[in-house]
Amino acid sequence: MHCLKVSSKSSPASIAGAIAGLVKDGEAVSIQAIGAGAVNQAVKALAIARGFLVPNGLDITMAPVFSEIQIGENTRTAIKMALYVHELDGDSN
Amino acid sequence: MHCLKVSSKSSPASIAGAIAGLVKDGEAVSIQAIGAGAVNQAVKALAIARGFLVPNGLDITMAPVFSEIQIGENTRTAIKMALYVHELDGDSN
Repeated sequence: MHCLKVSSKSSPASIAGAIAGLVKDGEAVSIQAIGAGAVNQAVKALAIARGFLVPNGLDITMAPVFSEIQIGENTRTAIKMALYVHELDGDSN
Repeated sequence: MHCLKVSSKSSPASIAGAIAGLVKDGEAVSIQAIGAGAVNQAVKALAIARGFLVPNGLDITMAPVFSEIQIGENTRTAIKMALYVHELDGDSN
């Protein structure tokens, strides 16, 4: 499982490229984001990654969970987003 | 298709309740959010809604797209999140 750590300063297009590459290689991917800005960049990256994947017959959806992360002495609540890969068939999609 | 409009001031628990109710009723649901704060509340609501649904044998995932929204004279880029419902079977989940 590859866990991509996204911050509010991450480039959605770059994250999208990483996601699409891993998904095409058949790797399991999750995304970790802490804070509203980071979650927003992650969701934008997913929208962009779908555009990279759909022409290859693949689509992704994500399911979020809360996750407590220890950073130094502080505990922060992160959002972890597990990605699910869906094969599109030519007939109905 | 029910489109829930979420803002940065929306309560994730309330949105989660609305999502879970509609999904249990078999309704198609999408969520619209404009801005990082709103996207964050929407994703938190999805995490909470999963907790309401999984005991009922249902899970949800979401797929985002960009969407241009006209608000008065301004065009804003919203994120629209389509929800997909997955039935969990007792054997493997």
